[in-house]
Amino acid sequence: MKHNRFSFFNFNHISLNLSLQNSKGFLYEEIALKIEQQIETGILAPGEKLTSVRKLSQQLDVSMSTAFQAYFSLENKGLIEARPRSGFYVRCQIQHRPVPPKKSITSKVPTEVNIDDLVSRLVGVSENKVEVPFGTARPDSRLLPTHKLNKTLLSVARNSEKEIIEYDFTSGNSFLREQLSFLSFNWGKNLMPEEIVTTTGCMEALNLSLRAVTKPGDTIAIESPTFYGVLQCIESLGLKVVEISTDPDTGICLDELETAITKQDIKACLVISNFNNPLGSCIPDIKKKELVQLLFKHNIPLIEDDVYGDLYFGSKRPITAKAFDEHGMVLLCSSFSKTLAPGYRVGWVAPGKFLNQIKRLKFMTSIASPSLQQMAIAEFIKKGEYTKHLKVLRSTFSRQVLLATQIIIKYFPEGTKVTHPKGGCFLWIELPGNINTLKLYYKAMEFNIEFLPGILFSTQKKFRNFMRISCSLVWENKAEEALKTIGQILLKELK
Amino acid sequence: MKHNRFSFFNFNHISLNLSLQNSKGFLYEEIALKIEQQIETGILAPGEKLTSVRKLSQQLDVSMSTAFQAYFSLENKGLIEARPRSGFYVRCQIQHRPVPPKKSITSKVPTEVNIDDLVSRLVGVSENKVEVPFGTARPDSRLLPTHKLNKTLLSVARNSEKEIIEYDFTSGNSFLREQLSFLSFNWGKNLMPEEIVTTTGCMEALNLSLRAVTKPGDTIAIESPTFYGVLQCIESLGLKVVEISTDPDTGICLDELETAITKQDIKACLVISNFNNPLGSCIPDIKKKELVQLLFKHNIPLIEDDVYGDLYFGSKRPITAKAFDEHGMVLLCSSFSKTLAPGYRVGWVAPGKFLNQIKRLKFMTSIASPSLQQMAIAEFIKKGEYTKHLKVLRSTFSRQVLLATQIIIKYFPEGTKVTHPKGGCFLWIELPGNINTLKLYYKAMEFNIEFLPGILFSTQKKFRNFMRISCSLVWENKAEEALKTIGQILLKELK
Repeated sequence: MKHNRFSFFNFNHISLNLSLQNSKGFLYEEIALKIEQQIETGILAPGEKLTSVRKLSQQLDVSMSTAFQAYFSLENKGLIEARPRSGFYVRCQIQHRPVPPKKSITSKVPTEVNIDDLVSRLVGVSENKVEVPFGTARPDSRLLPTHKLNKTLLSVARNSEKEIIEYDFTSGNSFLREQLSFLSFNWGKNLMPEEIVTTTGCMEALNLSLRAVTKPGDTIAIESPTFYGVLQCIESLGLKVVEISTDPDTGICLDELETAITKQDIKACLVISNFNNPLGSCIPDIKKKELVQLLFKHNIPLIEDDVYGDLYFGSKRPITAKAFDEHGMVLLCSSFSKTLAPGYRVGWVAPGKFLNQIKRLKFMTSIASPSLQQMAIAEFIKKGEYTKHLKVLRSTFSRQVLLATQIIIKYFPEGTKVTHPKGGCFLWIELPGNINTLKLYYKAMEFNIEFLPGILFSTQKKFRNFMRISCSLVWENKAEEALKTIGQILLKELK
Repeated sequence: MKHNRFSFFNFNHISLNLSLQNSKGFLYEEIALKIEQQIETGILAPGEKLTSVRKLSQQLDVSMSTAFQAYFSLENKGLIEARPRSGFYVRCQIQHRPVPPKKSITSKVPTEVNIDDLVSRLVGVSENKVEVPFGTARPDSRLLPTHKLNKTLLSVARNSEKEIIEYDFTSGNSFLREQLSFLSFNWGKNLMPEEIVTTTGCMEALNLSLRAVTKPGDTIAIESPTFYGVLQCIESLGLKVVEISTDPDTGICLDELETAITKQDIKACLVISNFNNPLGSCIPDIKKKELVQLLFKHNIPLIEDDVYGDLYFGSKRPITAKAFDEHGMVLLCSSFSKTLAPGYRVGWVAPGKFLNQIKRLKFMTSIASPSLQQMAIAEFIKKGEYTKHLKVLRSTFSRQVLLATQIIIKYFPEGTKVTHPKGGCFLWIELPGNINTLKLYYKAMEFNIEFLPGILFSTQKKFRNFMRISCSLVWENKAEEALKTIGQILLKELK
């Protein structure tokens, strides 16, 4: 009996595993995590009924409330569903994944970047009204603690009118740098406030970092695919790139990177380490360590973009490559634009031994960033509100990514492959055959549906049959309908 | 009799001039302006007694109140002083001026810029507590409408919480661009909102402009002396410069610029057109027109920094070179950092035909600037508060510049020459003989007095016996004492 298999075999197994760690009984998160793993690995099949809340509480010797909480958190993630007067059922699981891009890059010479024109033609459009914005990486403001954060900002503005009208330090507001220092424990690295420079968003952090460690004409190693904004930034600085293959789960391919390093004069490496844009990959800890060591061996600085790191779906935040940086060779860049307040334009960089260069470049670029938003976010963190908000946002993104996946699998043509990210808000989709997602983009825009075609994410006109769907919007009926519409366009195309 | 000469000869003259324009009698500003001109030209000598308020009102057929207002406004500017129970007296006038830098530059090859190290050693220090900050260009927050502006910001933040948490347009907040469009009438150019891109301060505007019209290795023409921040910015972008001589009154020397253009491959020209930093020069309208035409003839873009343009001491704002830009070749850059709110980090650029390049570069550099401060400043302008505030600030700076000049003339060694700016907040001082102002800088810093040594304002280690004094601080006794202290150090040095 399925029911039995679930309730006895599996939970006994959990029981054995967990009882050693926790003599006071299970936490609901532990129970939920175990069930989630069983759904992912296929032990629990879609449509299968879960054991009742009452039985679960008896079997595991936890309160009814804990059992309910476990199920509710899984329901919230979109993994299970409650059917009226019947109980909880497994919804769906993801079986399809994209193959990683073909490994045929490092034999080529470094490429000039020439993506800006294309991006401007496509992404510029989004200043207009888009009905269903699968194209944008920023969270919809309805998913943000808009009012709460604004109240904090108002109180800071009332109490610090002198501070906010004056220039702040070039290295940034000290209150925020203190709070970032506290947060850095979660990144696996205990950073001091004076090791951090705040910036006008992560984009400025990346810009300053690239300028600190390269000069025009230099070649840098990047992942393929890579966020088009990074490519534009590289282009505007007159840098060349070598694109390195990636695995959709574990990110940049180290063997290939090593080959590139030995063949080319690589001056820096840039990765989005956790929940990559667009790939969703997360470099495992051990591989992060290897990456840092490999680059250090060749005296190559690593620019690490960790802007999605706080958006993990699992139980623990992934650490950063910076955690393994013993020699100050990692420039860790991030911001609050994907998690809390895009419009506040608050980012930062922990530049290791390049601190002085970064400070000087920051001065020459914008003197300093505005204090007010920095102080408001610092206060928000200090009050514990940021952590509280992240919990909700993670659960929302996790649920929405899963819902989108389900619809894609159901309505997109046979042979569609889709990533299964463990965090962030992106799905990277490989379409079958000769589908050109740039054409698809224009067709979808006629329905006011925006996504981003794969061609934007490489310097080599690759990924023509790939697309990026961002699930950072508010999930409404029209989001589901929009995905179905894309699916219908695709089916018509393939006929 | 002096008294007679003043009251009859001069005022009859005004009377003739003005009666045509104004049949209802004089405005106090007109009377004050005329007296100011007489003080400047030496018709009224220092120490001379002015006609009494009663007589002045009778002679010009204006109310006592108008006559008093005229004298008060001159007193506020530091030009005259009231002596108890005696009347108003002329204070002092400036007779000494610096010679322009020697014209020996254009025959040289373009220079690599290498100023950043020096600036960082000196200007970085000012993050610490300086007692008397003659070194800083930003107005002291006590001279700013801190509370009033903050109230505006609070009201904007309360009413627009959704707008401020979201990304704004890359080209900037539209409300602010509308207000800038209105203000642009004062700049002699009717700019449309869509011709403007807002930035994180003027420094970002200059950065984007330089990046839009040059590539690393290019040579640009700049004034000599030039603001060190501009030199740093140029250095960080890998550009070379040709320094062009300047006149302390009328700015960049056009003959020399033309020679440079014919001899070198100049890719852009950058000037601070109005109330130059550090020189205080203001390029006359006719010369601005010639400058724009000369550059257009050679297809060279002009980057115009107008950050001090609103700080005129006379009766009318100088227009910009942009006013003569018929072909979109002038990139006009400015900000509110020197006039209203340094910490708000709000600047802008009107880039002419380089609009699209600037928008793209802005996106790649920081996506967009924060909205809140832009909206607050827009509202402040709309309410007429910005104009009101500028009136007070101009009068304060005008008075302080004059007070500083008086002390410098009195206490600095014989042979000291000092500029006589018509706006802004800087005095550019040439010291006699072999005085090294870098050494003087370190000595003054022992007394917690900061100014900037001349060597910072050129790529060629020139201006070793020059210094820049900024009068944007709050003028207190200790400011006067500090200048006297510098004078004493100098006298000791010369012995």
